[in-house]
Amino acid sequence: MKKLINAPEDVLIESLRGLSLAHPELSVDFENHVITRATPKEQGKVAVVSGGGSGHEPLHGGYVGHGMLDAAVAGEVFTSPTPDRVQAATHAVDRGAGVLHIVKNYTGDVMNFEMAAELAAAEGIEVGTVIVDDDVAVQDSLYTAGRRGVGLTVLLEKLVGAAAEEGRDLASIVELATRINGQGRSMGMALTSCTVPAAGKPTFDLPEDQMEIGIGIHGEPGRHREPIAPAKEIARMLVEPILGDLDAAGGPAIVMLNGMGGSPLIELYLMYGEVAALLEKAGVQIARNLVGDYITSLDMAGCSLTVLKADDELLRLWDAPVRTPGLRWGM
Amino acid sequence: MKKLINAPEDVLIESLRGLSLAHPELSVDFENHVITRATPKEQGKVAVVSGGGSGHEPLHGGYVGHGMLDAAVAGEVFTSPTPDRVQAATHAVDRGAGVLHIVKNYTGDVMNFEMAAELAAAEGIEVGTVIVDDDVAVQDSLYTAGRRGVGLTVLLEKLVGAAAEEGRDLASIVELATRINGQGRSMGMALTSCTVPAAGKPTFDLPEDQMEIGIGIHGEPGRHREPIAPAKEIARMLVEPILGDLDAAGGPAIVMLNGMGGSPLIELYLMYGEVAALLEKAGVQIARNLVGDYITSLDMAGCSLTVLKADDELLRLWDAPVRTPGLRWGM
Repeated sequence: MKKLINAPEDVLIESLRGLSLAHPELSVDFENHVITRATPKEQGKVAVVSGGGSGHEPLHGGYVGHGMLDAAVAGEVFTSPTPDRVQAATHAVDRGAGVLHIVKNYTGDVMNFEMAAELAAAEGIEVGTVIVDDDVAVQDSLYTAGRRGVGLTVLLEKLVGAAAEEGRDLASIVELATRINGQGRSMGMALTSCTVPAAGKPTFDLPEDQMEIGIGIHGEPGRHREPIAPAKEIARMLVEPILGDLDAAGGPAIVMLNGMGGSPLIELYLMYGEVAALLEKAGVQIARNLVGDYITSLDMAGCSLTVLKADDELLRLWDAPVRTPGLRWGM
Repeated sequence: MKKLINAPEDVLIESLRGLSLAHPELSVDFENHVITRATPKEQGKVAVVSGGGSGHEPLHGGYVGHGMLDAAVAGEVFTSPTPDRVQAATHAVDRGAGVLHIVKNYTGDVMNFEMAAELAAAEGIEVGTVIVDDDVAVQDSLYTAGRRGVGLTVLLEKLVGAAAEEGRDLASIVELATRINGQGRSMGMALTSCTVPAAGKPTFDLPEDQMEIGIGIHGEPGRHREPIAPAKEIARMLVEPILGDLDAAGGPAIVMLNGMGGSPLIELYLMYGEVAALLEKAGVQIARNLVGDYITSLDMAGCSLTVLKADDELLRLWDAPVRTPGLRWGM
């Protein structure tokens, strides 16, 4: 296993230590594996909490900061955080106006965040929840009933975070989050497997000349395997299922071409050129974009595409200032 | 070869196309492979140009923008851009106050930038040059007489770019750049080789249980190979040669823990925690830091460490606004 680690069981805590040292604007609760802003948001505003298994960095800890998350709860690699830790995060950032939980649709996450919401309710904190299930690749999957939550989570955390800074109430923020989830779709692919530190070997075998289309961010099986194709063909295999499921033509969209962790930026920009050409040809007007590693799968080589139908409101929220380790602009 | 590309010979031009589509704030000259700001800086200010072989993204094209570079010249992968193209970039961004060339110390780059400077001088453009040679790993190398230019280039481009925005004259900017080069050192390591698209196979063989310490950003040989060690040990192998060559104790420093392209962020933060602990123990006061993929070697797994002795002036320049695809803050 070729990794920059000490013992596999210490990867999460030691990575959190590095994050904490690198970013004094964040505060890390090492007992609960919770990352919060060092300077909390004003009293009376809705707080936004997300989390899940680690191994998808910068998601979620790298998105804590002004204009995005108030807290991220980091589970062990590819393992949901426990309800008491989600509850600790919720408790820590509540500013009296309620808390939104952003949950990727994996069975463990959904269950643990639900239990945390009940614990929070018991101490008088109002919690709203959005379940992100944007992955068009497969209906059910290894850890999921229904569609998996993947790349749209990044865009949703940015947009909802901006709305929370504006002081909107929890009901309106839940409504916004639900609307965003309905308007966004993703599709991913892998050239290689990832390797979970504790396992010490690749999650799955993918022959040197093969790729997997529709992969999940934990290496869950996708739709099909086939010989590695040119970028142009791969782009088509990502764009078509998305546009087959989302009527995005004729309007503005926010588009993310995301790297899975092991693919270099020169390839991601090349892929963006291919998907952008296909999307424009299909009548999608790309109004904003992200190209880079935003929701990863450890060291997996590959990429995913996310398309979110936008409108004036979403573009305004997108352009609002954000200051996090992973996304930063406008301030 | 597991890459998101079409034909190997089209990788650069197609990646530039994606960069251009993703960043309307940049302008790409596809004939010369030159990336400039869509909105040039004011007349009367020194322009800053860098470049070199591609495959190190976001360096250099991702650092074009306010507060950093005016132009980047992108050679083919790991291949120096030709003098006429460097000259085209120099000509394009000169605002009447001269142009600084930032050149990583590789024989081809040094020669081609020197010829470009002569061509520019012939048309009346004053050019100053800084050669970056911060790599403590080896004295001479595969493509280099003297030390190689690596991670410090990123920090130097940021700092000098800020000085140029302030309206300083060329002589003072050359002096600043030379001073920065004298105060910074880097050391890298690899867990895997990179694969150049045109070659189609790994540049070198590195057995599954081995790592290479002192690697160059083109896969040039380092100091020694040995069994993969814990992150703590790797950190020591990076920190010690740097501090053995640079008296950085007792003062502030800007520190970068850089990923080589194939190592995920969770590992880079873990490594940062290790190097930060060692540096602090040695009396280095880390005043600013960067953790992530800033100067890469295609898909190589591994990391490098850069330490720059700082002072009030350098920290002020560091904190000045920067707005590029690869670095962005303060605005």
